Amino acid sequence: MNFNYFLPVNLLFGKGRSDEIGKVSLGFGKRILVATGLNSTKKSGLLDRAIALIEAEGGECVVFDKISPNPLTTTAAEGAALAVSEGCDAVLALGGGSILDAAKGIAFLSKNKGDINDYIYNRLTGTKALPIVAVPTTCGTGSEANRFSVLSNPVTNDKKSLRCDAIIPRASIIDPELMKTMPRDVMSAVAFDALSHNMEAYLSKSAQPFSDIIALEGIRLAGENIVRVYEDYDFDKGWEALSLASVFGGRAINTASVGACHALEPPASGLRNIVHAKGLAALTPVIFEAAIDSNPERFAVISRLLGGKSEKDCVDVIIRLLRKINLDTTLSGQGVKSEDIPWMTENIKKVSAANISNFTKEFSSDEIAELYKKAL
Amino acid sequence: MNFNYFLPVNLLFGKGRSDEIGKVSLGFGKRILVATGLNSTKKSGLLDRAIALIEAEGGECVVFDKISPNPLTTTAAEGAALAVSEGCDAVLALGGGSILDAAKGIAFLSKNKGDINDYIYNRLTGTKALPIVAVPTTCGTGSEANRFSVLSNPVTNDKKSLRCDAIIPRASIIDPELMKTMPRDVMSAVAFDALSHNMEAYLSKSAQPFSDIIALEGIRLAGENIVRVYEDYDFDKGWEALSLASVFGGRAINTASVGACHALEPPASGLRNIVHAKGLAALTPVIFEAAIDSNPERFAVISRLLGGKSEKDCVDVIIRLLRKINLDTTLSGQGVKSEDIPWMTENIKKVSAANISNFTKEFSSDEIAELYKKAL
Repeated sequence: MNFNYFLPVNLLFGKGRSDEIGKVSLGFGKRILVATGLNSTKKSGLLDRAIALIEAEGGECVVFDKISPNPLTTTAAEGAALAVSEGCDAVLALGGGSILDAAKGIAFLSKNKGDINDYIYNRLTGTKALPIVAVPTTCGTGSEANRFSVLSNPVTNDKKSLRCDAIIPRASIIDPELMKTMPRDVMSAVAFDALSHNMEAYLSKSAQPFSDIIALEGIRLAGENIVRVYEDYDFDKGWEALSLASVFGGRAINTASVGACHALEPPASGLRNIVHAKGLAALTPVIFEAAIDSNPERFAVISRLLGGKSEKDCVDVIIRLLRKINLDTTLSGQGVKSEDIPWMTENIKKVSAANISNFTKEFSSDEIAELYKKAL
Repeated sequence: MNFNYFLPVNLLFGKGRSDEIGKVSLGFGKRILVATGLNSTKKSGLLDRAIALIEAEGGECVVFDKISPNPLTTTAAEGAALAVSEGCDAVLALGGGSILDAAKGIAFLSKNKGDINDYIYNRLTGTKALPIVAVPTTCGTGSEANRFSVLSNPVTNDKKSLRCDAIIPRASIIDPELMKTMPRDVMSAVAFDALSHNMEAYLSKSAQPFSDIIALEGIRLAGENIVRVYEDYDFDKGWEALSLASVFGGRAINTASVGACHALEPPASGLRNIVHAKGLAALTPVIFEAAIDSNPERFAVISRLLGGKSEKDCVDVIIRLLRKINLDTTLSGQGVKSEDIPWMTENIKKVSAANISNFTKEFSSDEIAELYKKAL
C-alpha cells in the first residue's frame, strides 16, 4: 500500500452557513471577484445577498456573470482578465458545478500567463492561483472539494480538466438550503453525478483507504436519498445527505480520480453540449454491464449499498434508480448521433486517456465505440 | 447537521517512503531543526539516515535530541530557542508521539513569543509556526495527522494540549517499516492508543460524518490487527493497517476530539509520569462500563468491529484484547496511589474539562473519583 493524501479545503457545512459568505471571503482579501452564471443566482437572490454580505464586512465586489453550462476556456480567460484589471484579491464562486469550475480557471489564469490549454495538457505547470471561496448551489460536481476544473475548448470541442492543487478552494461553504432552488430535473441530474463520482472512485485502480471510506459513504448517502428528495423537496435531512454526497464524491475523485463513465461522457458533452449527468445516465448501465466481471466484489458492494443483492443486479438497481428520478435516457435522446461515435472514440485518446486506464476494466477503442453504440 | 472540516496535512504513506525525508523537508527551507529523542532513532540509525538524506539534498541539520516521554513545556521552549538562534527554516520530527508533540511545541514557540502555557490555556492565540515535517516511528499518537501537541508543565504537573492549525504538520511521512523497531510492549501500548482515539472520536458529542467514517475504519483496522502484529512482527499488512489506524485516529480526534478516557488519563501521567496508553488501558474498561447506557447503539458498533456481538459484550471484548497483548493493567500497577485521586479529580477541571463534556456520557466529579477508584 502506497499513497499520498492531501486535500486542504476548509469545509463549512450546514443549513444557513451561507450567511458567512462575507466573513469567509474577506479572510482572503478585500476586493472579491464574484463569479456566477447568467440567471439562477440572480433569480434566487443569492447574488445580491452575497454582495451585501461582502460589503457589510467592508469588502468590494466585482461581478463576472458570463459563465454558462459546460464552461469554456475562453470564458475563464475573460474572467481572469477582469480579475487582473480590477485588482481582485480572491474569487468567490457562486453557483453550480460549471460556475465553480470556471471560477477555478479564472483564479488560475489570474496568476499564470499564457494559454490555459497548455496547463490542461501539462505542457506548462502553475503553482499559484487567486484564493477561491466556493459556494455551491447544486450538489453534484464535488468541485467545492477538489482540485479539478473541467473546461471546454470552443475551437476543438475538447472538454478536459485542469488539475492543480492551487485551485483547491481555500474554503467552501456548503449550505443545503441553497440547493433547493434547483428545478427537479437538475436535482436528479447533479445527484446522479455525485453518485457516479463516488462509484467511479470506488472502482478506480487508484482507490486507496481514504478514497474508499469516503466513496462508500457517498454511495450510501446518495443511494438512500436521491429518490426521496426527488419526491419530497421538504425532506431536509435528504438535502443534507445529498450535499454531503457531493462533497464526498469530490474528495473521493480528487484522490482516486474517475473512470470509464467520466471518460466516455466528456466527448459527448464537448461535442453536443449535453447535460453532463444525462450523458452519465445514458452511459453508466452500459459501461458497468461490460465491466462487472473485472471486479465482481466491488460491484456487489455498490449494488448492496443501492438496495441490490450482488454484482448480478447492480446494473438493474441503477436503471431502477434512474427511472424513479426520470433520468433514464440514451445518448441519442440527448442529441448525440451515430456518426459522432468515431470522433468521440478518437477524442477520448486526447481528453480521457488517463481515466480510461484508471478504470477497473480497461476498454480498447473498439470496445469504447461499441459502448457508445449501445448507449445511443 | 452543522460542522467544519479542515485538515491540510500532506500524507505520504507507504513502505520505504522515509527515503523521501530529505526531499520533503527541503521543500520547506534549507536549514532543518531535527527534533528527536535521547535513544531510539540513534540506535535504529534513522537519525543518521535522515541527516544524510537532508544533506544529500543540499540541506543543513541542527539536531535537538533532548525530548523525553511525556514531553515538557520547558523542553519545547529549549528547542525553540535553539531553532531561533540557529536560524532554522523548518522542524523535522523524528520519533514517537512525544517527539512529534514536542516538535510541534518547538515549531510554535519559534514563531510566538511568551509562555506556551498561555497559548495552551487560550489566554493568548498564535497563528504561525515553523513548517513541521513529521516522521512517526510509532503508530499510536496520530500527532502526525492533527493539530494537537500534548505537553506537561513540570511545575504544576498539568498535562494539556496546545491546539492550533499552525502546528498541523505540512507533510507527514508514514513508513510502516519504521514502526518495527518498537519493542513489543511499546507496540501494544501505542496501538491501543490509536484504537482509543478512534473509539473516543466515535463516542464524541462532536462526532460528524467525516470523523465517523474515519473512526470506524480506524477501529476496524486496529481491532483486526493489533493482536496479529503483536504475535507476528513479520506481518507486513498488519503494520500497514496499524500505521493507518494511527493516522485515522489522529484525524478523527482532530475533528471530533477525545472523551472521558483521554480526559481521565492526563492527570495520572501528568502526576506519575506513567505511559499514556497504559493509563488508557487501565481506565477504558471502567469508563466504558459506566457509559454504555448513554449510547448503546454506538457501543454495539464498536463491539462488533472488535469481534463482539452487542453493547453488552463491548467491555469484555476490550478486556480480552488487552489481555492478548499483555496490556491489562491497573492504575496502581502503574504507580498511581489512592491518595492521588483527589488531586487527579480536581486537576481534570483544569486540563480536561472540554473532553469530559465532549464524551457521550458526562461524569460528575464524584463519578470521576469513583472511576479512578475502580481503575486503581
